[in-house]
Amino acid sequence: MASVAPPVFKPFTLTLIQLGSIGSDKAANLQHAREMIVKAAKGNLDKKPQVVVLPECFNSPYGFVHFPAYAENIGYTAGKEYDIQASVSESVKMLSSAAKEFGIWLIGGSIPERDAETNNIYNTCTVYSPTGALIASHRKVHLFDIDIPGKITFKESETLTGGTTTNYFDTEFARIGLGLCYDVRFPELAMIAARRGCHAIVYPGAFNLTTGPLHWELLQRARANDNQVFFSMCSPARDMTAGYHSWGHSMVVDPYARVLAEADENETILHVDIDPEPFHEARAGIPVTKQRRFDVYPDVSA
Amino acid sequence: MASVAPPVFKPFTLTLIQLGSIGSDKAANLQHAREMIVKAAKGNLDKKPQVVVLPECFNSPYGFVHFPAYAENIGYTAGKEYDIQASVSESVKMLSSAAKEFGIWLIGGSIPERDAETNNIYNTCTVYSPTGALIASHRKVHLFDIDIPGKITFKESETLTGGTTTNYFDTEFARIGLGLCYDVRFPELAMIAARRGCHAIVYPGAFNLTTGPLHWELLQRARANDNQVFFSMCSPARDMTAGYHSWGHSMVVDPYARVLAEADENETILHVDIDPEPFHEARAGIPVTKQRRFDVYPDVSA
Repeated sequence: MASVAPPVFKPFTLTLIQLGSIGSDKAANLQHAREMIVKAAKGNLDKKPQVVVLPECFNSPYGFVHFPAYAENIGYTAGKEYDIQASVSESVKMLSSAAKEFGIWLIGGSIPERDAETNNIYNTCTVYSPTGALIASHRKVHLFDIDIPGKITFKESETLTGGTTTNYFDTEFARIGLGLCYDVRFPELAMIAARRGCHAIVYPGAFNLTTGPLHWELLQRARANDNQVFFSMCSPARDMTAGYHSWGHSMVVDPYARVLAEADENETILHVDIDPEPFHEARAGIPVTKQRRFDVYPDVSA
Repeated sequence: MASVAPPVFKPFTLTLIQLGSIGSDKAANLQHAREMIVKAAKGNLDKKPQVVVLPECFNSPYGFVHFPAYAENIGYTAGKEYDIQASVSESVKMLSSAAKEFGIWLIGGSIPERDAETNNIYNTCTVYSPTGALIASHRKVHLFDIDIPGKITFKESETLTGGTTTNYFDTEFARIGLGLCYDVRFPELAMIAARRGCHAIVYPGAFNLTTGPLHWELLQRARANDNQVFFSMCSPARDMTAGYHSWGHSMVVDPYARVLAEADENETILHVDIDPEPFHEARAGIPVTKQRRFDVYPDVSA
């Protein structure tokens, strides 16, 4: 159980930026990401974004050979105040400044992070409050090492190290769980987040043209339904000139496993109303969150 | 981990009987179930059934008010030889005799069981070898208590007690995990079965016209994919004159989460080839079974 009670779940707007034009020029990537945050922050009709999400690996081409060159020293420690002014991470500075300028909660997709002490490189998601404070981070726990012959081979572990903690953060309207991409194939992370009181769980991710059609939607609907939470993954837009072809299809699923919104493969922004009603209704109607048999199997969140 | 290594996984034919005509006359229910086993055992073209499955609650109307009246004393203890001749359960005797007559492994759906010692009633699946031996049972662990206003309200716990163990059985071609219906909403049972070496997991079940369209396929595909096993649920046929309207749509899903076969809502028999190839291929290509981070979260099967 979480040591602090989660906030009361209130309606909010979740905004996904399915970012395109991610190339080899990091400064250009950061500039374009910032432009899209500006665009997203304007909202859409009655929708004022409260949580804005960038995709996995938004400042670097996605490929394990690239991670060392793009890695930045972040130096964030959970529970300790982080000094943005003293940060040497240009990506962290951009994200903090954008969150503050627009007064939004910002889930900054992920960037390659180099740990100054160990020299290990991580695939790291950082989160910013509306005042621009860096308030949470998630280092991808499960590294994306797959080999489907003739289709897709990828080995993050060539240059990355897996994280060792699970994480979430509290806003004034919801507790939100964090994970990254391949983490979604391992049910435990979302089970832990949900049982610690998360109302919504967000995983920036970048499936591909093989695993996307197979499992992108299934995994999000499964995590949402098993845990009766909102579940969302935010992908980069598809770029067939890039080394890695992202599936796109950024998505938000409700606690009944209904797909609330889904992008196509192009650069786009989705503004999605998150309504607590189906969260409470699903849990009252099909009360699996109270019917678990921890006398028969252990609670992974205990 | 299981104490005995699982058998080498070889191809086999899994046959689902989506049984209809389940009424208030138990003798007639047993007779019709037997007729359908006879029909199923004949196979279809080149398909000779090796594992035959009946649906949940095949000898009784599905409703908690009916369970006490239909409950039988089975008296099976895991790991102990069971004397069929001495059994007082007419359902067990029919199932054993049919398994022996046709030389099939028979997953006998489920029947209401009354425990002689405690007088508790369980929703119990029994399994028979091709010699007619009763070799495994599963008492439904998670009772079906749901209340979706205006749609479906059901409360098994009014008359049933939940089981306290997880189970599987070994054939000469596969290790097969067991569960019943609502158990599928709790990921742990299938995780435990798969991690103990099951190649396929079979849950007789009876979703309804509300939960069926929402989650019947999703849950099976999720369990299959997360655990990279074959997953199958066998339902009764739909009977709109009965007190409970089953969804039907008996299904077999492969370890990539692809639906291999699906019934409609009517009485039918599905013969499905289970091929070890996608089981091994999925696990080699997307090796989640070797990438779990039990340093970050506990192993529910440990």
